[in-house]
Amino acid sequence: MSAFRKKSGVNELSGKFPGYKGDALQALQEVGAEIEDQIRVTKNGLTYEGILIPRSEHGDDKHLVLKLRSGYNIGIKITPTTKIEKIGPKTELTFVPPPPPEQKKNLPKVALLSTGGTIASRVDYRTGAVRPAVSANDLYSIIPELSDIAVIDAKILFSLFSEDLTPDHWTKIAEAVAAHIAQGADGVVITHGTDTMAYTAAALSFALQNLPVPVVLVGAQRSEDRPSSDAATNLIEGVLAAAKAPFAEVVVAMHETISDESIVLHRGTKVRKCHTSRRDAFKSINVDPIARIKDGEITLMTEDYSKRDRNRELIMRSRFSWNVKLLKFYPGMDAEIINLLVEKGCKGIVLEGTGLGHVSRRCFQSIRRAIEGNAIVAMTSQCIWGRVNMNVYENGRDLLSLGVIPLSDMLPETAFVKLSWALGQSDDVEVTKNLLTNNIAHEISARTVKM
Amino acid sequence: MSAFRKKSGVNELSGKFPGYKGDALQALQEVGAEIEDQIRVTKNGLTYEGILIPRSEHGDDKHLVLKLRSGYNIGIKITPTTKIEKIGPKTELTFVPPPPPEQKKNLPKVALLSTGGTIASRVDYRTGAVRPAVSANDLYSIIPELSDIAVIDAKILFSLFSEDLTPDHWTKIAEAVAAHIAQGADGVVITHGTDTMAYTAAALSFALQNLPVPVVLVGAQRSEDRPSSDAATNLIEGVLAAAKAPFAEVVVAMHETISDESIVLHRGTKVRKCHTSRRDAFKSINVDPIARIKDGEITLMTEDYSKRDRNRELIMRSRFSWNVKLLKFYPGMDAEIINLLVEKGCKGIVLEGTGLGHVSRRCFQSIRRAIEGNAIVAMTSQCIWGRVNMNVYENGRDLLSLGVIPLSDMLPETAFVKLSWALGQSDDVEVTKNLLTNNIAHEISARTVKM
Repeated sequence: MSAFRKKSGVNELSGKFPGYKGDALQALQEVGAEIEDQIRVTKNGLTYEGILIPRSEHGDDKHLVLKLRSGYNIGIKITPTTKIEKIGPKTELTFVPPPPPEQKKNLPKVALLSTGGTIASRVDYRTGAVRPAVSANDLYSIIPELSDIAVIDAKILFSLFSEDLTPDHWTKIAEAVAAHIAQGADGVVITHGTDTMAYTAAALSFALQNLPVPVVLVGAQRSEDRPSSDAATNLIEGVLAAAKAPFAEVVVAMHETISDESIVLHRGTKVRKCHTSRRDAFKSINVDPIARIKDGEITLMTEDYSKRDRNRELIMRSRFSWNVKLLKFYPGMDAEIINLLVEKGCKGIVLEGTGLGHVSRRCFQSIRRAIEGNAIVAMTSQCIWGRVNMNVYENGRDLLSLGVIPLSDMLPETAFVKLSWALGQSDDVEVTKNLLTNNIAHEISARTVKM
Repeated sequence: MSAFRKKSGVNELSGKFPGYKGDALQALQEVGAEIEDQIRVTKNGLTYEGILIPRSEHGDDKHLVLKLRSGYNIGIKITPTTKIEKIGPKTELTFVPPPPPEQKKNLPKVALLSTGGTIASRVDYRTGAVRPAVSANDLYSIIPELSDIAVIDAKILFSLFSEDLTPDHWTKIAEAVAAHIAQGADGVVITHGTDTMAYTAAALSFALQNLPVPVVLVGAQRSEDRPSSDAATNLIEGVLAAAKAPFAEVVVAMHETISDESIVLHRGTKVRKCHTSRRDAFKSINVDPIARIKDGEITLMTEDYSKRDRNRELIMRSRFSWNVKLLKFYPGMDAEIINLLVEKGCKGIVLEGTGLGHVSRRCFQSIRRAIEGNAIVAMTSQCIWGRVNMNVYENGRDLLSLGVIPLSDMLPETAFVKLSWALGQSDDVEVTKNLLTNNIAHEISARTVKM
């Protein structure tokens, strides 16, 4: 048994082609390629070279999985035009990052900024723990396919778990994006921990206005040296989106399902991490994603988007206030907490209320006092799906009359980011309220047809 | 045009059978019944009498919708054995609750406790607003079908919007349930506002141990006088579950999809309101519901349940602490809030962290201090789906070594309720921790197969 099998925990799969069946198995048998053989796959003009690795037994019968030189895994769907070649014998898998590949000319220029997270991490086999370790440059060098898609300018911004990022990091990321766009980037990819990637995506959506090119956040739910890793697929398609997508918006590129078949591009203001570990954890809420990437093709899923236009001038609005709090309501919630926060200088509170946008009457007095003290109090729903409507029930109407601002179907996380941003733009309560309630980056979706 | 059509806003549908098609249309044509005719439907031994009302244009071709004497609507699926009769001419719809029907003998006894909410509310046509107005007795009297299922003992506990319920109300509801079980109820139905119904369901799951009979919470997303109301269907099937389900657990009975076709019974600790307005807003998280009701039949969806046993002795554990807080983490969260809460006497904090169970290192010092001060700090995930695993990343492991308690796949809302309950049972930190982490009412589900 090779070291690889022991490490990746797939030694319960047996035979020459563990996990392979149907079309994929047939294609491998035709070229005489077995697990751990070095193979080359050519498809849609792109070439992938790596070691054939076992598949999960739950996999379909259409995909091969290659471990690229290095440890990154990629799933490739076999079509009638896919060419498979065996280019070398079985080999042990060890991590030796090759030098970055030579850059081709005449390709779009993509800036690749790394901030940390699983996509840039590796498992420490002694402890079983995952540590951030791989820089953007490493990522690039170990996924040479990227050089077929774009000329990559890789840069490390920071190497942090994403829960440690703060509004100040949002500002720094926005500034780095702006600098690379000014230097001629045709698109920007940001590798990011998945934990708070949706918050950062929302922040960039408000900070980077009038974008000329796409800004794509990419993460991974499984570190790149695990057989089930989504790192390489997400990164390759993220770079493709940055290089070629017809829109110029902030999006998150992640798996659409648990298979490697398709990547979806979620709008930065409408996306949420909805599972702790699944590769398809990210979901667009209340709307479709903006586009899908499948077999190297980008298909738009909406007609309502801002077009890519290299001549458009980016408007930077990258200041965020720290004086905003997100408060999730629960039965019996102590209203005193609102008083304490306001006393400590809090200027904005996003409530994650129940249902159509409610909190208990027990909180009304504190909310009234906060608003009288010029704090902004806004309402979202902990249901996550749907939209607040505070006109239906008496408690909702009373909250409206206290001055609570209903935020339609804005996600609580996006609302927190937006209020932090709005209070970073202006100290004037009316100006801030207008910024908060006007749709800036599709954070409020059109009212859906009543059921 | 009748007053009914004007009120219900379906006057854009035209013809004799607006919204009806296929089998349903054919069945109506065969008996010469038109919209607003009084009809009787007999199916599976149950008889429904009411006025035929228009359907949504998005409806299927299998269901009739009847407005029962009064305003409650029910969808009935037409099968080959369903009998339809026209029993009277077109009629104006006005709300005149009839007296409660005569009770049949030899049926199971079900206690029907009302706490408020949409299921017990009516639209005020002058303002368009919804007000709580209907008592359990009214509910019963306007859905005479209930008397075919069970002998109902209806009682009003309170008439509150559910966001105004507190841990003290959980105790009162638990005590009322216990009293009715002691008086011989074969099942208990609690009508409840949907906003915090899942919190109350979790609370009752911990408070009512060793239950001899089912306890079923029922709500409605649309008030009963709207054509799309789910009130009657949920209540009828909720009473059926209380009367006849083979299990003795606390469950929530709500629509499985947006059609009236099936009701699912969710375990009280694993359910969450995931949409502000849809009728299928309630979802079991990480597990299947315990059972489905379709065409009057209860089908179990798991074999792992506590059996109904009238001789089992209920154990009451109905005290809840008010000194527990639910804190949702967000980037840049002010750790100071944890200090403030602990200074104010908080004994337990449920963190809704990111991903596998993380918060920023900026919070570590405050968390350490809280735990050193004998507060219990527990971790759940704002992802909602999946489970925390704090051994994967350094921040998670460091939180564990501070003494933060990982709660596997317990929902944040359930974890808040459970810690409130555990601290209501004991002041001893170790006893409380044991209560919190031991699976009491299926709040932690078996580890699913890794993907």
